[in-house]
Amino acid sequence: MTTGVEIAELLTRVRETTPLVQCITNSVVTNFTANVLLAAGAAPAMVDIPQEAGMFATMAGGLLVNTGTPTAEQRAAAREAVAGAGEAGTPWVLDPVAIGALPVRTALAAELAEQHPAAVRGNASEILALAGAGSGGRGVESSDSISDAAGAARELASRLSTVVAVSGPVDLVTDGTRVLRVGNGHELLTRVTGGGCALGAFITAFLAARAEAEPLAAVVAAHTVYGIAAERAAAGCAGPGSFATALIDSLAALTAAEVEAGARVWQDSEEQK
Amino acid sequence: MTTGVEIAELLTRVRETTPLVQCITNSVVTNFTANVLLAAGAAPAMVDIPQEAGMFATMAGGLLVNTGTPTAEQRAAAREAVAGAGEAGTPWVLDPVAIGALPVRTALAAELAEQHPAAVRGNASEILALAGAGSGGRGVESSDSISDAAGAARELASRLSTVVAVSGPVDLVTDGTRVLRVGNGHELLTRVTGGGCALGAFITAFLAARAEAEPLAAVVAAHTVYGIAAERAAAGCAGPGSFATALIDSLAALTAAEVEAGARVWQDSEEQK
Amino acid sequence: MTTGVEIAELLTRVRETTPLVQCITNSVVTNFTANVLLAAGAAPAMVDIPQEAGMFATMAGGLLVNTGTPTAEQRAAAREAVAGAGEAGTPWVLDPVAIGALPVRTALAAELAEQHPAAVRGNASEILALAGAGSGGRGVESSDSISDAAGAARELASRLSTVVAVSGPVDLVTDGTRVLRVGNGHELLTRVTGGGCALGAFITAFLAARAEAEPLAAVVAAHTVYGIAAERAAAGCAGPGSFATALIDSLAALTAAEVEAGARVWQDSEEQK
Repeated sequence: MTTGVEIAELLTRVRETTPLVQCITNSVVTNFTANVLLAAGAAPAMVDIPQEAGMFATMAGGLLVNTGTPTAEQRAAAREAVAGAGEAGTPWVLDPVAIGALPVRTALAAELAEQHPAAVRGNASEILALAGAGSGGRGVESSDSISDAAGAARELASRLSTVVAVSGPVDLVTDGTRVLRVGNGHELLTRVTGGGCALGAFITAFLAARAEAEPLAAVVAAHTVYGIAAERAAAGCAGPGSFATALIDSLAALTAAEVEAGARVWQDSEEQK
Repeated sequence: MTTGVEIAELLTRVRETTPLVQCITNSVVTNFTANVLLAAGAAPAMVDIPQEAGMFATMAGGLLVNTGTPTAEQRAAAREAVAGAGEAGTPWVLDPVAIGALPVRTALAAELAEQHPAAVRGNASEILALAGAGSGGRGVESSDSISDAAGAARELASRLSTVVAVSGPVDLVTDGTRVLRVGNGHELLTRVTGGGCALGAFITAFLAARAEAEPLAAVVAAHTVYGIAAERAAAGCAGPGSFATALIDSLAALTAAEVEAGARVWQDSEEQK
Repeated sequence: MTTGVEIAELLTRVRETTPLVQCITNSVVTNFTANVLLAAGAAPAMVDIPQEAGMFATMAGGLLVNTGTPTAEQRAAAREAVAGAGEAGTPWVLDPVAIGALPVRTALAAELAEQHPAAVRGNASEILALAGAGSGGRGVESSDSISDAAGAARELASRLSTVVAVSGPVDLVTDGTRVLRVGNGHELLTRVTGGGCALGAFITAFLAARAEAEPLAAVVAAHTVYGIAAERAAAGCAGPGSFATALIDSLAALTAAEVEAGARVWQDSEEQK
């Protein structure tokens, strides 16, 4: 069970170690993603071209592959980078954005998923599609609920020996055996583009900085901290525009004590705290 | 004649139907465009690679093609997507950014314009260039005025059987016969990158959600709502940075009553309301 | 020696002449860069595809080449554009982002550096790498200090007959003979993605608008104005998110008197003012 204290310690470790996070991500969210990583204390690097991505993945602390706008060069770079991450033991995260109906990204995500991601993160429709159990959502939106995807998430995690995280009103994170829930977050995250994509990068930073902590704990911690920051940002904002700005401020300002006090994480078969 | 009540009803319809808006747009404005669409209640999807763009255009509620940074893959994707939109009857909008002197985008825009866009939107120089009547502006800026472009806009709309919208201090929207003017808007829209490009996506959302309304009415409504939101955003802001943030907030918060009260639309040969 | 009055005059000239600044820059910072240029009074144009970039560089007031995410098309466009700039006498700026270990961008930057940039701007690790004297930084971060890079910056400036600017807590700007220091700026610029990249575009605008002023003076003026705007933005902000927004507002609002009063520039072998 991941406690608020453990979660806060992982945030502190991100801030103290400044993990270098390589992002191969979509053109819509690069700026927001980089600013989220900087606010968390990590060092973003969008190295996403062939002949550079592979070698950089051997040097980076973590790698994110997001399939949101997968150009031919990004697909080649992603293959290189995942191979480089495998050689060097760099933890990497797959965010299979909008897979299902769209053939190029769906094939890419299916191929890369077999190459030992440390975590896979998506919405319910994306996780169902990756598990081969759904037809995908409506573009980048989920048309399925977390409970629809819970079984597929556990099976996928077991089959790939990875951690699978499904974002929703309450997030689900599983390693195939244990199922944890994160109650932190805010609806405004779905009203800002990149709310989920930047979380994928945030997870990568926590995996890169986790030291002896389990991947499951790092993924849960990233969801929790991000969710608490979103709650605090939402409190004072006037709408989705100012929320996005406030989320960056909030991530930079968040204290360990606030994380400890705000964490709402529980394991299935337990009561919600 | 489009009234404030009709305009407000179209905004409500966008919010209630959450149209899926596919954007093939330039790398400078993807993030802002997606956030404008989300704030309006639409669902953005930047599906802009070959082998995905065409099929997605058959599923989407509307399609935007913006020529701001037209890479080879985006050009191929745009051709696919426009063909897919044609097959499926998906309304699509052409925003011929910076055409005129620049040969690649000028040829692309001329080719696509023949394929039945529901609307074409640009500044005066771009509309003149597309009509074959001008030499284009200075990059993305217009060096011509709305009155310079009024005749070309009407002729272009008639020839292509489309709606042509020209942005300026007072916007002009025409189907070749009727000429409507929208007095809403704010000068700060020209001080923020993507102020016009995001309007192209906003128009697409209104066309996707319009149901029985005429395309002309949908395009006028989009300009009016966007302009009212800009006026409200400008009222409290400290400069172009906070204006961009406030515009997103304002689009999300705008009520039907505010739209009805704020709309300044008139038809040529009428007096301004 | 560049005085506050001279610096303020250059800012006024940027605002009065609205220089057209072509940017071939990375996908992370396009939006922020365009908004910085607009706030300064310049006209951004991200024309970065082959067959357009070269001809546009002959029409533009200035050209920026930034190697942050150098796709194949951007590399071809950069070569075209630098050639076009050379033919037309358009001043151009090289920002060799993250060169050193990464082979594609390192080779590109080395090749382009020989083609008469008006200025080269980077962090200490990038300048050392371009001078052949270092191994490069850690992705986009500098792992070297300004004093480590001072000698390399002077040698590089002399060899290329250009101005070299090294960003740090105190910026160094040199033409190989004179070494100027700019004490303006704020640590939050390093916490926002594009803080340095947008400065490259800002420098380009000042070079484009400089008229009879020396390139060295224009580069120093750009650093100073940008730094003063950052100081003012930092004063009232709640973190890096609101700082980025406030920086845009601050650039737009800055008066000549504020620049004159705030400038902290000195030449080596002088005392700091």
